[in-house]
Amino acid sequence: MAIPVISVVGKSDTGKTTLLEKLIAELKRRGYRVATIKHDTHGFDVDRPGKDSWRHAQAGSDVVVISGPNRLALIEKREQEMALDEIVSRLTNVDIILTEGYKRGDKPKIEVSRREKGSELLCTEEELLAIATDQPSEMNVPQFSLDDAAGLVNLIEERFLAKPL
Amino acid sequence: MAIPVISVVGKSDTGKTTLLEKLIAELKRRGYRVATIKHDTHGFDVDRPGKDSWRHAQAGSDVVVISGPNRLALIEKREQEMALDEIVSRLTNVDIILTEGYKRGDKPKIEVSRREKGSELLCTEEELLAIATDQPSEMNVPQFSLDDAAGLVNLIEERFLAKPL
Repeated sequence: MAIPVISVVGKSDTGKTTLLEKLIAELKRRGYRVATIKHDTHGFDVDRPGKDSWRHAQAGSDVVVISGPNRLALIEKREQEMALDEIVSRLTNVDIILTEGYKRGDKPKIEVSRREKGSELLCTEEELLAIATDQPSEMNVPQFSLDDAAGLVNLIEERFLAKPL
Repeated sequence: MAIPVISVVGKSDTGKTTLLEKLIAELKRRGYRVATIKHDTHGFDVDRPGKDSWRHAQAGSDVVVISGPNRLALIEKREQEMALDEIVSRLTNVDIILTEGYKRGDKPKIEVSRREKGSELLCTEEELLAIATDQPSEMNVPQFSLDDAAGLVNLIEERFLAKPL
């Protein structure tokens, strides 16, 4: 069975990461294994100058893996950005995948909306699983307060997850 | 065909990372796609506090992916260290895999040895593909100076790689 993928989207500074943190914590509390995918449109540098693995990457290594007792990290050079579905196809052994960003993707979305950033939404009603907001929307979509992770996870469970035993 | 895996091993501070950098650069110069795996026995922290992806991991996410235009990073929590062969099985689209460490592994090894760290080697003759050293060894194994990446890569090509067209 395909792993469900849900995208948390919203304008800048509406609190996507904060909501993600709450959703992750709530899902973990309920016993699920969770993966998150952060869409970084600007590019990023995960590693630190001077570290051996950074030296591997600087020397030209296409893929750098660091494997430790509690953690595995993999950094891969790309000629172009990897498609979301391609990333998803690499993930195994998790119950649910949450993305931060990917507003143009085709996954069900939770849009974070905040009064001070305006009332118009990025998504259409059809794209939305739910709205997390501090202002009521006229859309016919389930609405939750910005910190109601339990409510959102109830909806996610109902729609996408078989409860673990 | 399996991707060849070669382990660069040696005592602490013999210059494993420096040799790796030279081998990576030489392999890249010859047109190969290279992956490196660094064995970090002490554990590590690749990400930086405050960054969104670190917040995902802190909130309990089992797998954190960051995808950008030129780079993909994946950080996975492990209950126990991943076996080298399991890591290797995840890597595709490279011509060769070099590891830093994994002296107990079963891959062909290049041992880095340096006079100031003593003359005895970690590996037996049978395990060694080559020695990179500033002191002659009595072992019946090809020997190269510490910066002879071209010589080492000639040997690696001859033994493990079909030249790219």
